[in-house]
Amino acid sequence: MTDAALAARLTEITGGPTTPGPDDGHDECLTVAGREPAHVVRPETAEQVAAVLKAASEAGTPVTARGSGTGLSGAAVPSPGGIVVSFERMNAVLEIDTDNHVAVVQPGVTLQELDARTAEHGLVYPVYPGELSASLGGNIATNAGGMRAVKHGVTRHHVLGLQAALPTGELIRTGGKFAKASTGYDLTQLIVGSEGTLALVTEAVLKLQPRVAHQATVLAPFAGLPEVTRAVPRVVGSGLQPQVLEYIDGMTMAAITHTADLQLGIPDAVRESAQAYLVVVLDGRTQERLDEDVEAVAQLLSELGAVDAYVLPAGSARKLIEARERAFYTAKAAGADDIIDTVIPRAALPEFMTRVTAIAQAHQTFVIGCGHAGDGNVHLAVFQKDTATRSTVLHELFAAAMALGGAISGEHGIGHAKREHFLALEDPAKVELMRRLKQAFDPAGVLNPGVLL
Amino acid sequence: MTDAALAARLTEITGGPTTPGPDDGHDECLTVAGREPAHVVRPETAEQVAAVLKAASEAGTPVTARGSGTGLSGAAVPSPGGIVVSFERMNAVLEIDTDNHVAVVQPGVTLQELDARTAEHGLVYPVYPGELSASLGGNIATNAGGMRAVKHGVTRHHVLGLQAALPTGELIRTGGKFAKASTGYDLTQLIVGSEGTLALVTEAVLKLQPRVAHQATVLAPFAGLPEVTRAVPRVVGSGLQPQVLEYIDGMTMAAITHTADLQLGIPDAVRESAQAYLVVVLDGRTQERLDEDVEAVAQLLSELGAVDAYVLPAGSARKLIEARERAFYTAKAAGADDIIDTVIPRAALPEFMTRVTAIAQAHQTFVIGCGHAGDGNVHLAVFQKDTATRSTVLHELFAAAMALGGAISGEHGIGHAKREHFLALEDPAKVELMRRLKQAFDPAGVLNPGVLL
Repeated sequence: MTDAALAARLTEITGGPTTPGPDDGHDECLTVAGREPAHVVRPETAEQVAAVLKAASEAGTPVTARGSGTGLSGAAVPSPGGIVVSFERMNAVLEIDTDNHVAVVQPGVTLQELDARTAEHGLVYPVYPGELSASLGGNIATNAGGMRAVKHGVTRHHVLGLQAALPTGELIRTGGKFAKASTGYDLTQLIVGSEGTLALVTEAVLKLQPRVAHQATVLAPFAGLPEVTRAVPRVVGSGLQPQVLEYIDGMTMAAITHTADLQLGIPDAVRESAQAYLVVVLDGRTQERLDEDVEAVAQLLSELGAVDAYVLPAGSARKLIEARERAFYTAKAAGADDIIDTVIPRAALPEFMTRVTAIAQAHQTFVIGCGHAGDGNVHLAVFQKDTATRSTVLHELFAAAMALGGAISGEHGIGHAKREHFLALEDPAKVELMRRLKQAFDPAGVLNPGVLL
Repeated sequence: MTDAALAARLTEITGGPTTPGPDDGHDECLTVAGREPAHVVRPETAEQVAAVLKAASEAGTPVTARGSGTGLSGAAVPSPGGIVVSFERMNAVLEIDTDNHVAVVQPGVTLQELDARTAEHGLVYPVYPGELSASLGGNIATNAGGMRAVKHGVTRHHVLGLQAALPTGELIRTGGKFAKASTGYDLTQLIVGSEGTLALVTEAVLKLQPRVAHQATVLAPFAGLPEVTRAVPRVVGSGLQPQVLEYIDGMTMAAITHTADLQLGIPDAVRESAQAYLVVVLDGRTQERLDEDVEAVAQLLSELGAVDAYVLPAGSARKLIEARERAFYTAKAAGADDIIDTVIPRAALPEFMTRVTAIAQAHQTFVIGCGHAGDGNVHLAVFQKDTATRSTVLHELFAAAMALGGAISGEHGIGHAKREHFLALEDPAKVELMRRLKQAFDPAGVLNPGVLL
């Protein structure tokens, strides 16, 4: 099929032009350059998406899905000559089902929109990857995580069902408005986190929960990172169920508070001696229970070596969490050359951070970080202009995480950006099995080639 | 390869005889007859399991995994001439990791053993499928659920990682001691619930949590089942987070209390007018909080139409829950011809039960039930001796569940028992996709043929 014939076919399917715009071929990844696709379609229905995939499979033309373009691994960057399927017109919250506690959404719905809609019913979708303009479709493709994962889990744990278009042209429905099933292979969980390489999600059933009214944020400065990371398993083990358990190193804290012009009321003497911070957010069904829990966590943090523990006023707390969310942009503005998000067992954090320091020093590279400490998910900003050296540093950081029982990415995904490292470090038997699974979904190999595998 | 040559090869691998015993070829399924395998191996290491699979693939001989044999779908019944891999010697709790809150277990470990071992550390594996002699390997194969799923989720939500032997002979490790990753397809979740058809699990990393000390059980009689099922979404929506939310119909309650010789202290007048019961188990970090929550739930149940709400003494509560667990055996003893466990959105329970009654009446079949109401997982005991009529009844019950957005099985699995219904009712595009996934794992087609697909 000629390019013009394919364009005509795609227009026939979606009823719109297929001319790409300047923003259709990139995401927020620092290391993968954007690329304009040959065609972009903006379907309005699942049936259109399925028909586009069928046409692409027949033509052998690569297809890349696009949500809000906030991904960090280049998975939204299309192949040369490829089609981008942009979900901007499939952006409806189809249902908030208050009896079953689920939302049914189209993939183009943003986290912000979903939060507003669930709030009207006293419910919440508790996954909080930070970037509220992100789309649910993108969140599902990368299995997005974020700060509240330590209590509530990640995207995977909240996707109960999907409607998805297969590259072979069928539309399937998986799972449903229920949390348990033992009826065949779990296609839902296989598609979640597959970075647009297996199927395109056209609808998702998301688990909601009652919105908890009362919330408090405790900020605890510690002498150093080892003290913070050693405290983490104890806070999780306390049964106090923190919603957020973030560590922020001194340098990152200085940067994000400076950027956000944030006054946290920490005395200068404390701030100067604190090399690392732990942020603990607690919630409670009543103010009284929350107050008790805040008291208990402050006491515990003090026993675990915190210099002090500050309960932040609501305004500062919100600003700190927002600033922490924006840490990626702060690092980017500060000239970071790459940002990674390795995951390790949370008790291995102190050892991992020791290895990070050693790797950084060995290659004269500057590495700072913050992270979802409760989950062992460490975000590191890597400052190293030389591409080859940076690649070596990344390889060693990923290898260190894997040696400690971890994985390359906790929530950003592999995408184009980390594919080479993934293929080099992962067990070949698993890579081969994943290739066979990919083949089972996508015999023509059109869905996001070059991403992941 | 001759049968004798295969036996010799299997003995060489596992160091033991391969002569089957009388208990090696059945499970607790009421409708699938046991069958003695040609060979049984009792491996001691993951490497032996992988070598057995490799030999079986080369010989083209079917392989069926066996844990404690407590399954309810016939998935442990081997193929004619097949090999049973019994995990009775791989029954070690390898690690209770208190910092990361995980247990690492071999597949032959029972729920009872794991509970005892985690209790020593103040931790708990909260999945509670009821039959405590069941093995974790079997639980993983069927994605076992149980009564606490409404709060804690099912097996799937607690399996963080696996070591598994592939039919192609490799041993792989998936996931790890962390709750989040975005590093390739989620092989862990694909293997969980695959009923021994994709890979054999040789080790599992299970998520634990702090054991909560305080617990209370509230029993609420209602006039009828519609009243109970309408109350369920409201109790879940209250934010009180019940750990257990079971409905028991009047007939089942009479049977299980009679069998267990259980005195619940319910006045005769109430018992005679109550056609259905709701059992609510709450837990709390402190006795004070628990007492408050019990008060709140009793108040709520009363508003929702409960005749009364009884807080059961600890002894009776334990016995009731145990008796509920044993409901399968009670139904079996009462002559039930089949027991199924459809799942539907919980708000669809009233409508589903109406349809169940209509189907039962239309086919002059007796159907009673109880269920995990919070999850919409309904266990129905079907009394109908005629095989053809019973098959029609089952087909109609499953179709009714699917029409309401549900699935055939919530936690028992498809196995041999429900395969025919699964293949008849499921979307052919999904069945074909599952066949291709099966082929990707098991090109020789040796793992549990005739189960599921």
